[in-house]
Amino acid sequence: MLECQVHGAQDLRVVDVPTPQPGPGEVLLRLGAAGICGSDMHYYFHGRNGSFVIREPLVPGHEASATVAATGAGVTRVKAGDRVAVNPSRPCGRCAGCREGRENLCANMRFLGSASVFPHMHGTFREFFLMPESQCVPVATDVSLAEIAMSEPFSIALHSAHRAGNLLGRRVLITGSGTIGCMMTLAAKLGGAAHVAITDVVDHPLAVARQVGADATVRTDLLPGDGRLSDVVGEPDVAFEVSGAPSALAACLETVRRGGIVVQVGTLPPEGVHLNANLIMARELDVRGSFRFADVFEHSVRSIAERRVDVRPVLSGVHPLTDAVRAITLARDKTVSMKVQLGPGA
Amino acid sequence: MLECQVHGAQDLRVVDVPTPQPGPGEVLLRLGAAGICGSDMHYYFHGRNGSFVIREPLVPGHEASATVAATGAGVTRVKAGDRVAVNPSRPCGRCAGCREGRENLCANMRFLGSASVFPHMHGTFREFFLMPESQCVPVATDVSLAEIAMSEPFSIALHSAHRAGNLLGRRVLITGSGTIGCMMTLAAKLGGAAHVAITDVVDHPLAVARQVGADATVRTDLLPGDGRLSDVVGEPDVAFEVSGAPSALAACLETVRRGGIVVQVGTLPPEGVHLNANLIMARELDVRGSFRFADVFEHSVRSIAERRVDVRPVLSGVHPLTDAVRAITLARDKTVSMKVQLGPGA
Amino acid sequence: MLECQVHGAQDLRVVDVPTPQPGPGEVLLRLGAAGICGSDMHYYFHGRNGSFVIREPLVPGHEASATVAATGAGVTRVKAGDRVAVNPSRPCGRCAGCREGRENLCANMRFLGSASVFPHMHGTFREFFLMPESQCVPVATDVSLAEIAMSEPFSIALHSAHRAGNLLGRRVLITGSGTIGCMMTLAAKLGGAAHVAITDVVDHPLAVARQVGADATVRTDLLPGDGRLSDVVGEPDVAFEVSGAPSALAACLETVRRGGIVVQVGTLPPEGVHLNANLIMARELDVRGSFRFADVFEHSVRSIAERRVDVRPVLSGVHPLTDAVRAITLARDKTVSMKVQLGPGA
Amino acid sequence: MLECQVHGAQDLRVVDVPTPQPGPGEVLLRLGAAGICGSDMHYYFHGRNGSFVIREPLVPGHEASATVAATGAGVTRVKAGDRVAVNPSRPCGRCAGCREGRENLCANMRFLGSASVFPHMHGTFREFFLMPESQCVPVATDVSLAEIAMSEPFSIALHSAHRAGNLLGRRVLITGSGTIGCMMTLAAKLGGAAHVAITDVVDHPLAVARQVGADATVRTDLLPGDGRLSDVVGEPDVAFEVSGAPSALAACLETVRRGGIVVQVGTLPPEGVHLNANLIMARELDVRGSFRFADVFEHSVRSIAERRVDVRPVLSGVHPLTDAVRAITLARDKTVSMKVQLGPGA
Repeated sequence: MLECQVHGAQDLRVVDVPTPQPGPGEVLLRLGAAGICGSDMHYYFHGRNGSFVIREPLVPGHEASATVAATGAGVTRVKAGDRVAVNPSRPCGRCAGCREGRENLCANMRFLGSASVFPHMHGTFREFFLMPESQCVPVATDVSLAEIAMSEPFSIALHSAHRAGNLLGRRVLITGSGTIGCMMTLAAKLGGAAHVAITDVVDHPLAVARQVGADATVRTDLLPGDGRLSDVVGEPDVAFEVSGAPSALAACLETVRRGGIVVQVGTLPPEGVHLNANLIMARELDVRGSFRFADVFEHSVRSIAERRVDVRPVLSGVHPLTDAVRAITLARDKTVSMKVQLGPGA
Repeated sequence: MLECQVHGAQDLRVVDVPTPQPGPGEVLLRLGAAGICGSDMHYYFHGRNGSFVIREPLVPGHEASATVAATGAGVTRVKAGDRVAVNPSRPCGRCAGCREGRENLCANMRFLGSASVFPHMHGTFREFFLMPESQCVPVATDVSLAEIAMSEPFSIALHSAHRAGNLLGRRVLITGSGTIGCMMTLAAKLGGAAHVAITDVVDHPLAVARQVGADATVRTDLLPGDGRLSDVVGEPDVAFEVSGAPSALAACLETVRRGGIVVQVGTLPPEGVHLNANLIMARELDVRGSFRFADVFEHSVRSIAERRVDVRPVLSGVHPLTDAVRAITLARDKTVSMKVQLGPGA
Repeated sequence: MLECQVHGAQDLRVVDVPTPQPGPGEVLLRLGAAGICGSDMHYYFHGRNGSFVIREPLVPGHEASATVAATGAGVTRVKAGDRVAVNPSRPCGRCAGCREGRENLCANMRFLGSASVFPHMHGTFREFFLMPESQCVPVATDVSLAEIAMSEPFSIALHSAHRAGNLLGRRVLITGSGTIGCMMTLAAKLGGAAHVAITDVVDHPLAVARQVGADATVRTDLLPGDGRLSDVVGEPDVAFEVSGAPSALAACLETVRRGGIVVQVGTLPPEGVHLNANLIMARELDVRGSFRFADVFEHSVRSIAERRVDVRPVLSGVHPLTDAVRAITLARDKTVSMKVQLGPGA
Repeated sequence: MLECQVHGAQDLRVVDVPTPQPGPGEVLLRLGAAGICGSDMHYYFHGRNGSFVIREPLVPGHEASATVAATGAGVTRVKAGDRVAVNPSRPCGRCAGCREGRENLCANMRFLGSASVFPHMHGTFREFFLMPESQCVPVATDVSLAEIAMSEPFSIALHSAHRAGNLLGRRVLITGSGTIGCMMTLAAKLGGAAHVAITDVVDHPLAVARQVGADATVRTDLLPGDGRLSDVVGEPDVAFEVSGAPSALAACLETVRRGGIVVQVGTLPPEGVHLNANLIMARELDVRGSFRFADVFEHSVRSIAERRVDVRPVLSGVHPLTDAVRAITLARDKTVSMKVQLGPGA
């Protein structure tokens, strides 16, 4: 079987390795589709993702669908041939975060495709891989494997929606219209948001956002006059900052109504940002971080499987593992790509 | 009667003016004690408080106790001779903020001693003043007028406590040990916080914090080694940033436990701060602003009147109105003063 | 103009009265459609609605759409010819409930078509009526006047949804499939409920519930075996008890998951109910009352106007005011009618 | 060593059995004090506690302090000679309740001294017993073993307080002034309740409630006139129903303010109650069950160990295990006893 290994910055090797066999409670999965996410790009281009540095060859990938190839002893939830969404989270279940019902804050989290632990947790950029049964969620409908693989990014958006609380009837602003911004649009609409405005500085992702249901799209770099976003979108109740751009966070703090909520979803620059943080006090805002997700994965899978949300406008094609470098490079170009995925190939 | 008028930066005049007469629903109050707050100092020293610029002579002061001198027609809640705490908030009752139950976010707030509206809302640095009956809360116990005048700053702390939510059993960090930091200590302990650690860079206010019940005090400028606050205070559940110092906010974001709460109470520099805001996302924090107060004033008065909280360690003396400039200057010196107050004089 | 007056039990008179003229801030409305609600039936059939007894001829009706006939001085929000939804709530804005942001708990509420105050607040079962501008919400789309008149019952459902909190991804049970049960279905789906099961003891309303989006319908009187609802619907996270039947409330307490939420929306018998209330403790449930609505009316109007919810399956016809008695009698027959409405006639 | 075994209704035998030895991770404890709770009385007098029937000899008891006699391999938190509070909860850590952060709702809970599982979980009415290290919380201060044994009942009260939410400044009603009512009083005051009124139909427990800080005590059987509790206690924001008496729950529903909170802590009659449940809707109440406790045990121990709450007025004496029947009988007499405890004897 083939496996993508990142050995260091811009050193990705597609290697032939033995196919593993499932032990008790384990499932052998054949890759369906594996989305390329920002962290995967960081590992490939820079050999690191923030403070997590590659110390041994790492198989990236944490967004995946798959088909069950074989099951180990005691597995009852899935059987060979089933199509599944893969939950990349493996929390410990015993730490303070887990016991509080916030497993995304697990102090001992093992997350697929991540160099946060050593030995690293290898991910889904490979033809076959083993997974504990508990991380496999079967899909009974006939949506595509590419759609099923969006269960992870849509979970991010669902978790962020829950961090904001009840969105029913709320006016929502989303800054950043990439894949997560579009997932956020779908989640906000699913939660009953009365109006969703979304911003970006590129046309293509805004066009996709409209396709997935955004009520208004704004090119923030083209704002007229003194460029106040509130002149265009009014005073939303809730803002989701998805872009990671400091100027977008600033816009959220200025634009939500007094007493409003800002959810920080995007990764901000590690060197810090310059911010009029006094607005948090003077406008009595709630600024809430949103990190990974907890307890929404099955809802995410079900929503996609039943097409309660339609992720297809976000999909930008599946490439074989052997073309991984080209696909990762393509994924970085926001003017043409949204979610680029890898598949097992022919 | 005497009245302190600020005509501009460092131009405070104590003027003799006629004593007003109460109309229907109004109460004529004789000043008991009027605390000098940061905003009063800003008006005096700079002729402005942030974006609020003095455009006509302003009587500062919004923390006051008083004795009822006379009552207008229809007043039933108080009678001549009663001692009262003065609520400086006059919300409109009709805007979105008021209708949502957050009158501190009133779009049309009239707040005593403030140049935020024109004509300005004159405050309590005067011998006599009129007040609507609804802003006068009578006190039946024999606590001092100086203590009663702490009802406003303690309301600030109670509101901030409510912004954090239930503090019962929580470990709390407070950054900044001035008057509000000490009020915050009292509020956190009253709400059942299991442990309160408080920081400052000066000894005197930390000594006062210990007197009002802080369990631990920390000179953050004297931290050993690489100076991580968590080495000294562990991982508090909730942090109240009271100082307005950017470094203190940074310390709060780093020190509270993952998933913890940071309440921004202090006024941060208007030019913005440099902040590792990504911690909000990566540690999934809740950062909540706290602005003035809503619906806690009567509880504040009662807590002080019944000495459920003892504010006396914070009191640094009452000076006659004729000494206002000296008192304001004294109030600015944190090495010797906590809450300096003005009284009507002999 | 014609007006329906209830003089006592089963004594409804359609009377010719002068058309009023709008004063300052008032709007003269011509009735579009006026829904017949349970309280209207109680006034007609029994001369009372619970503890509210008719003491003078009462014009019932609190669910209405209308067309603006004329406007008084100072009215700016609407103009002649506009179609509007009528908000029947007139809270005082000054009591504890109003100041807390819960105007539905207003101690001095004046609600249309109600004998709760004297003189009574006359309602909308008449050809023309005056309304303060603030209670008129204009509708710009071309949905029908019958649909617009559903804004009030849909507000009831939206408020109940908010009482339950965030419904995104939740499994929901609704007991009682009349008009409010169907509105509740629409509200739960709008709020992102993952699954809505609804119960009744009559087929017709269950068929309508399916039309408005219920995922499962249950005839509780036909449950197999020992008749446990959980055998059919599993363990929902949230139950909305809408029927007012004591057995339905009992079923909700037994059926929601441990730690689940039950919202009581229906009016239970005034003589009390026999209930295994210990389940609230032993299963650690949250049982929340839901009374009228606060702050959702405009969202309700907008949702209907934009057809984000489609109320048409619930509409059972508009009858002229002159046929009021026949229409009220028809409205009571659940085997054929859902929402029966009155209109101004030809 | 001696051990109390309940073999059936009114058949308690004090038996000499071998002292066990601690395995890895286990601690051998010598009993300090073991409180007699209502469930213990039910097992003794009726051979059952609600639906849990004794099917083999059961050692009752779930409120205990102890001294560490020996430790098994790998135990690091405590050492021989330490005094500890015993946490009677052993949740599974994997079920939905545990993963949601509500371990008290664990589907597989093993709770000390309970016939809810078979073989039964034996409790603390014995001289020595083994306990996993994780259920032993060491106490460093010199409070008595009798006080430390109150950590469990005080945990019940703390959990109930958390179910009510933030109590800071709230007016509280507690119905039922037995041990849990008094613990509830301590918890409410610790959480900053502004006023606590407590009711009972016997004088002795009310006198104890005053000693632990109740602001007002009411003999509900002696209410003047038509006996409305609100005439005496006003409209509390929150009521804790602790007695299990249906009339007390009725009084709570009638007495809390509109929009108020009622927490059901007491066990209501299994045959159900007759209740004006419509008040929940018409007064828009929140009625919340409170079952055992989650995540407050260490806070409870610390609060008692540091005497932030003083439980001593509630203690009614420690009796040797050999006098268990007499002690259980005494514990039932509310006119003289509050918390009766068993100790290891001389």
